[in-house]
Amino acid sequence: MTVTLSATLAANEDIERRRRAGERVLHLAFGEAGLPVHPALRDRLGAASDRNGYGPVAGAAGLREAAAGYWSRRGLPTDPDLVVCGPGSKSLLYGLLLAIGGDIVLPMPSWVSYAAQADLVGARPILVPAPPGEGGVPDPELVATAVREARAQGRTVRSLLVTLPDNPTGRLATPPTIRRLVEVARELDLMIVSDEIYRDLVHDPLTPYMSPADLAPERTVVTTGLSKSLALGGWRIGVARLPDGAHHLRTLLTAVASEIWSAPAAPVQEAAAYAFAEPSELVERVAQSRRLHSAVTRAVYDRFVEFGCSVALPQGGFYIYPDLGHLRPGGSAEVTRVLLDQHGIGVLPGHAFGDDPAAARVRVATSLLYGESAQERLTALSAPDPLALPWVAANLNHLSRGLADLSAARPREQRRSLVSQLGESLP
Amino acid sequence: MTVTLSATLAANEDIERRRRAGERVLHLAFGEAGLPVHPALRDRLGAASDRNGYGPVAGAAGLREAAAGYWSRRGLPTDPDLVVCGPGSKSLLYGLLLAIGGDIVLPMPSWVSYAAQADLVGARPILVPAPPGEGGVPDPELVATAVREARAQGRTVRSLLVTLPDNPTGRLATPPTIRRLVEVARELDLMIVSDEIYRDLVHDPLTPYMSPADLAPERTVVTTGLSKSLALGGWRIGVARLPDGAHHLRTLLTAVASEIWSAPAAPVQEAAAYAFAEPSELVERVAQSRRLHSAVTRAVYDRFVEFGCSVALPQGGFYIYPDLGHLRPGGSAEVTRVLLDQHGIGVLPGHAFGDDPAAARVRVATSLLYGESAQERLTALSAPDPLALPWVAANLNHLSRGLADLSAARPREQRRSLVSQLGESLP
Repeated sequence: MTVTLSATLAANEDIERRRRAGERVLHLAFGEAGLPVHPALRDRLGAASDRNGYGPVAGAAGLREAAAGYWSRRGLPTDPDLVVCGPGSKSLLYGLLLAIGGDIVLPMPSWVSYAAQADLVGARPILVPAPPGEGGVPDPELVATAVREARAQGRTVRSLLVTLPDNPTGRLATPPTIRRLVEVARELDLMIVSDEIYRDLVHDPLTPYMSPADLAPERTVVTTGLSKSLALGGWRIGVARLPDGAHHLRTLLTAVASEIWSAPAAPVQEAAAYAFAEPSELVERVAQSRRLHSAVTRAVYDRFVEFGCSVALPQGGFYIYPDLGHLRPGGSAEVTRVLLDQHGIGVLPGHAFGDDPAAARVRVATSLLYGESAQERLTALSAPDPLALPWVAANLNHLSRGLADLSAARPREQRRSLVSQLGESLP
Repeated sequence: MTVTLSATLAANEDIERRRRAGERVLHLAFGEAGLPVHPALRDRLGAASDRNGYGPVAGAAGLREAAAGYWSRRGLPTDPDLVVCGPGSKSLLYGLLLAIGGDIVLPMPSWVSYAAQADLVGARPILVPAPPGEGGVPDPELVATAVREARAQGRTVRSLLVTLPDNPTGRLATPPTIRRLVEVARELDLMIVSDEIYRDLVHDPLTPYMSPADLAPERTVVTTGLSKSLALGGWRIGVARLPDGAHHLRTLLTAVASEIWSAPAAPVQEAAAYAFAEPSELVERVAQSRRLHSAVTRAVYDRFVEFGCSVALPQGGFYIYPDLGHLRPGGSAEVTRVLLDQHGIGVLPGHAFGDDPAAARVRVATSLLYGESAQERLTALSAPDPLALPWVAANLNHLSRGLADLSAARPREQRRSLVSQLGESLP
């Protein structure tokens, strides 16, 4: 196995260092929800501070039942005995890689940790691009070929992964694509790992949402957590819904969990049980967060469009994934470095997500635009027009200024080509 | 790598199932401190319930500084930048296996998770018995031969591990043994991982305690946590003190942490920072716990001695490791099964700790003898004579009755051989 030094970690540490040194850096590199804890959850955590026993590795019965209810309300009747909790869905995804074994098919691009985790367990990810216009899902038509090729080379391929909606692209795979992918998974006898941590943050509630578990409950593991919808990243809580009847997988996953992390923190489990029961005040909080993420993500999207970037409209979460190739020669590392060094804008390079390093695509996380203080963030959460808040507006202007400067600094020949592309005159 | 199904997990689940079914089982199988949370820590957790950011992977600065202070007060001046926190020292030990790489020398017997973790990362543990009368430390004279042999076979051996004081034997390696082991580690260029999670529970404060880090700070990683001394197992918090100047190891370890668990739960980190600062009320709580563990462990030891078992006097923690071979033919699995099925006593078999399966050694954890309710445990904690408390006395009597029955049920020829050994007449 290989320990990959995390590009994300290094990038975020660099940004934090610059900010501590007084540099004005717009931090768009970190996938943190950037919102305060709801007081009801604070109360639950405090009340559960007497819980200090190790408890069951799979998680407390109350939490597993609440998570089962959460999925049942989304059309996926769930057996609490097939729910396994962990300190973040990230740890569960890692445990699943070990428990399922073999190589895994990943969408390209996809969240940085999938491939890094595969490296750690000695698996080789097979990167497959998404169908045009989609994200978070390997193109079903390409999966079959890629898997057959890998198997012909003697590799064991056991699973494929989807992110619904996606990080980094913010796109949500369509039901026909999911349907086709499930058929392919059945033909190839692949498990499907469906990372649905951004599910409750799909911007438009009318967007059709299909989980592979709706169609193939016998081979789909769904993971989620409270880091995104309820901004509890620092509390470290995730849950996995195992396939129907997958008691052997449960045994393997809990064996792994028992040797690495034991269980999520017991007081956090209590608070999470409350959250997964979805009381009205938390449903309302998730709705507010969804509106804020949607409004700001859309505004950031508009800024990139304004400067002629090729970028897909995000459908969920708080990321966008523009291509800045027309503004700057060089690949994603180069454009990321220039944005940070010359324009004080911290983003992550597309190659960290497994994308082509030659493409100037970057992932922009919008959630740290909401304010520096808890009070500013809380205000943003309930503001009818968060974009009008002075600090949000200032952050968006910083971004626009950076893009304008980048655009103005681009080589003459590139500007000329842009002119011909856009049919506009440039100064 | 291999996912090993945990014998401990299965044994504990079996015992819990029997207890839920109303069976009277004395639960001596689980390494939980079995004491309540100190109110000061409950307050700190509640007060920190607003902390929901991911925070640094290595842990919050305040926690790392507090842990550095903890070690500095024990004669190990510590750079907070070389402290890495995790959700339990178990996760850190796993991360260290990946970050250090190669095979590892383990004491035989040793805590169940070391070898299981090695299996998960695809490493092969080299089991080396402790010097006679000691535990938790591979015999330095045997280490050199074992490592040279493994290396001659082409294996990469990079580290050795000690547990000070030990689980399962309760023994503390002597300073001369540690001194010799450090010499051997230097000769062979091995890192030393020193698991010191039971350090503050050494029963007699006058027992000389030597960490390999005292002698070889350039190659020793020390791990500890709050699960044992402050009974915070369910809160999942551990800390590692990396060797002097080991910045590359820190980078690798945080890279692993970042892909598997991110960081311990943020509110728990705040409470842990308070704990590692060792305010007087927590120092007193640890002292009370130490006295209780010591008194009950000693009483349990006496019961086994009474029935002629070969057992070393525990020096720290809450375990004893008797050999029941004279009472019952068969190995550790057999005697463990008989104790549970016929005498309602749940222990763990020595083979789960890497010991010879043919030996009838079992690990007995005493900490679940203190009571069923939080109130009983709190009473035990401050009782001048915890052995006189009715529930503790009843538990000890259950154990004695079980051993007496086991003794009475043993085959005639074994009884006869015992007679000749002990020079006593038997009924």
